[in-house]
Amino acid sequence: MFKLSRVLHLTSTSRHRLLEVLSSRNVEVGDSLWDRRDFTHSAGISTSTNNYAAKGYASDRIFAPYTVYKGKAAFSLSPCLPTFTKLDSGTVVVDRRGSIMMTFMHSIGERKYDWEKRQRFALSATEVGSLINMGSQDSSEFFHDPSMLSSNAGQVRKSLSIKPNANSNGYFVSLNVVNNLLNTKDYFSVPVTAAEFAVMKTACSFALPHIMGWDQITNPQSRGTESRGTVGIQRKGGSQVLDLEWEK
Amino acid sequence: MFKLSRVLHLTSTSRHRLLEVLSSRNVEVGDSLWDRRDFTHSAGISTSTNNYAAKGYASDRIFAPYTVYKGKAAFSLSPCLPTFTKLDSGTVVVDRRGSIMMTFMHSIGERKYDWEKRQRFALSATEVGSLINMGSQDSSEFFHDPSMLSSNAGQVRKSLSIKPNANSNGYFVSLNVVNNLLNTKDYFSVPVTAAEFAVMKTACSFALPHIMGWDQITNPQSRGTESRGTVGIQRKGGSQVLDLEWEK
Amino acid sequence: MFKLSRVLHLTSTSRHRLLEVLSSRNVEVGDSLWDRRDFTHSAGISTSTNNYAAKGYASDRIFAPYTVYKGKAAFSLSPCLPTFTKLDSGTVVVDRRGSIMMTFMHSIGERKYDWEKRQRFALSATEVGSLINMGSQDSSEFFHDPSMLSSNAGQVRKSLSIKPNANSNGYFVSLNVVNNLLNTKDYFSVPVTAAEFAVMKTACSFALPHIMGWDQITNPQSRGTESRGTVGIQRKGGSQVLDLEWEK
Amino acid sequence: MFKLSRVLHLTSTSRHRLLEVLSSRNVEVGDSLWDRRDFTHSAGISTSTNNYAAKGYASDRIFAPYTVYKGKAAFSLSPCLPTFTKLDSGTVVVDRRGSIMMTFMHSIGERKYDWEKRQRFALSATEVGSLINMGSQDSSEFFHDPSMLSSNAGQVRKSLSIKPNANSNGYFVSLNVVNNLLNTKDYFSVPVTAAEFAVMKTACSFALPHIMGWDQITNPQSRGTESRGTVGIQRKGGSQVLDLEWEK
Repeated sequence: MFKLSRVLHLTSTSRHRLLEVLSSRNVEVGDSLWDRRDFTHSAGISTSTNNYAAKGYASDRIFAPYTVYKGKAAFSLSPCLPTFTKLDSGTVVVDRRGSIMMTFMHSIGERKYDWEKRQRFALSATEVGSLINMGSQDSSEFFHDPSMLSSNAGQVRKSLSIKPNANSNGYFVSLNVVNNLLNTKDYFSVPVTAAEFAVMKTACSFALPHIMGWDQITNPQSRGTESRGTVGIQRKGGSQVLDLEWEK
Repeated sequence: MFKLSRVLHLTSTSRHRLLEVLSSRNVEVGDSLWDRRDFTHSAGISTSTNNYAAKGYASDRIFAPYTVYKGKAAFSLSPCLPTFTKLDSGTVVVDRRGSIMMTFMHSIGERKYDWEKRQRFALSATEVGSLINMGSQDSSEFFHDPSMLSSNAGQVRKSLSIKPNANSNGYFVSLNVVNNLLNTKDYFSVPVTAAEFAVMKTACSFALPHIMGWDQITNPQSRGTESRGTVGIQRKGGSQVLDLEWEK
Repeated sequence: MFKLSRVLHLTSTSRHRLLEVLSSRNVEVGDSLWDRRDFTHSAGISTSTNNYAAKGYASDRIFAPYTVYKGKAAFSLSPCLPTFTKLDSGTVVVDRRGSIMMTFMHSIGERKYDWEKRQRFALSATEVGSLINMGSQDSSEFFHDPSMLSSNAGQVRKSLSIKPNANSNGYFVSLNVVNNLLNTKDYFSVPVTAAEFAVMKTACSFALPHIMGWDQITNPQSRGTESRGTVGIQRKGGSQVLDLEWEK
Repeated sequence: MFKLSRVLHLTSTSRHRLLEVLSSRNVEVGDSLWDRRDFTHSAGISTSTNNYAAKGYASDRIFAPYTVYKGKAAFSLSPCLPTFTKLDSGTVVVDRRGSIMMTFMHSIGERKYDWEKRQRFALSATEVGSLINMGSQDSSEFFHDPSMLSSNAGQVRKSLSIKPNANSNGYFVSLNVVNNLLNTKDYFSVPVTAAEFAVMKTACSFALPHIMGWDQITNPQSRGTESRGTVGIQRKGGSQVLDLEWEK
């Protein structure tokens, strides 16, 4: 894994250069609102390539996160599809469930975000249901413990909170991570407008049947395929939820 | 059909073993919230394989149910696609309508559910319409009589009830089955959170056009195919609603 | 066109026979709620085959209408896709816009509906928008004049009305047809439950982007195809809205 | 680019002639409500062919805009898909983000609209989120500056406004363009009914995951493809948002 922390300065006219230097660790975005998103998307995508793809976790390596960049922090949403396994009987079953992966980064300067110290939180189907069900006055809070089954249970705790702002025309999306093993604490808070939250709800509603695997049941292309193994439903690699959330 | 009732104890680290012993009858889930779902999903899927696939009812044998596990009982939802028949004229018509199949199981111990004594209830398109139309204060109740057309009419009665809980932040989903032929009664009640119900509504809204067969009309892949018979629209087997609901 | 009006009596056990006699004109449904739908679906589908397919109007001849059967009348909804034409420049444009075709039939006995005297009303995209936007207290009314551009303008008038019932838990869907050319009047009124209307709204919301042709823009399968003519986007025949609505 | 401004008079029976003369500049619609839409759709599509396709911007050259024609002006909506690039690592990333392209035209006579002087406004994903989140009393306003990153920043300003009408049963959709470089001002205002706005919201909700590129992650057809470059995900050309909005 890269530990390199070099900071890059990318201008809006250096697209090609951008794609070359993406293996570095910090994300520095362009000079305009449009470019900012463009660059950071590419940056987030490409660096993640180094981590995801090497372990075969990528959803066939297409990256199109929805990212909300704000002054102190940013977060992105991206669907992680379930993986399937074909049993000897020929039946295809869900192996790892899908999720909506949230990735948080701190701002470390004007239009620069610290990809190296990012934290992840993988929303399960039911947590996505909670999000898309929220009215403008509603709050949600989710707790994850990656060590739940081990002797380290309780040592690392993550909580994601979504709370309406004072005038109910948006939310604060906050992630709190307490790691007693590393003796670290981390906190991110990103204000989200009603429009940005509407994108999140619509995109998550779209993605939900896919992360549940229902699209594989209803999609005529995946029916009647006679190929063997997970490849038969055209999903290689996949999103190993806990692994993705807890490792870097 | 299997009558074996051996209870298995599966741990979270025995995934591979799990997949081997799935032909047994009871569902014992893993040690964590995450594993619990994982295991039971697989279990429910694989045992159903033995029943479904042998009769060719499986929707091409991809299983990805959404399951709500609670203390006394659990239920899952899974779309069952319609089947089509090609007439001599070349026209393709719906042969059996699709449904959302609900499967209820009693809890028989910590994280163990009794697959052997499961009961099913197949929601028709209009019943799905009723479910996705429910506000937080609304109730729905559906009645099915599998013997409706025979001399046994009224001998077996199933009713599914969805009622808001006291503080309107969730529902009780209950199935009552009275079988005068076997002289048995069965009752399941599962509390469902608002988040879980939002998943159910979103997933059912996604599935509705598919169980109606409208996806076959609008999907460009299924248009213009010149193949013959049901295979031409890439659906073999299929979901024979009444049969699936009433047999085990 | 068939003028035959023989009435058939189909039982729930005569599925195969059903498929053979579908070229007759009246629709007689089975003995149970489930079978009723099953049979009439098949019946409506198959008879329409004789009319639609002979003229090449069918959307590749897959039929899966959603039908609401009530005591005095019934109506069905079915998406009619747009047709496209490839210009010499290679650009593919909409040739005929799509619609949601409504077909009304009078009841002519217990579970029998008169397919011969059916009337059609093709909802445009904007009329579909009106329908899916309706709250439980709202009304909609649409007027069509098939002779709008000819010397017969005003001679035939159709109006579709959707009105909430007294306790706002459903609607009356009514079609009125005044044909001064044939000196006929026709009126259908079908009470629709909130659940049935929810199916209509969900199915129409699903179908709307398809009848607009937006699915052809966003579907990766239709992109990059190099085939020529309408076949290139895998739609032959198609839904000629005005023709379909006005002829029998 | 064409500068020809000849006005055509097309009747409802001259479809074939229409398709031949589409390279002219003004849009004159047919004689009926139905034909009006038909013709103008085709017209708008074909003229755009000359501009779009020549530069390779078309989304594989399928055109199916949703157009609202009113007395003084008209506007259309059409999804513009993102483009993707395959990195050396094999990872596919978003190159240019997608949008919903709005195109405004002035009326220049009965059922004639001035395609030559059209103005465009490309809604980003978040702006689409704002639109689909609007209640019947809500307003939205968006500002674009195409020269944001250059020395001409502030010289050209576009603002799109969506405001409820007096009785809250529809909206005014208005575009204001101030171009200090050309010393021109342009203003369009189109009243939109609640039904038309419902179509816009439903179609934009459908398109949103596609303009975000999430359909490429969840679509099984695009997974597992081993082809190289952008072609591998079957998108050539694409929607270069800023370019499309600012050039004619």
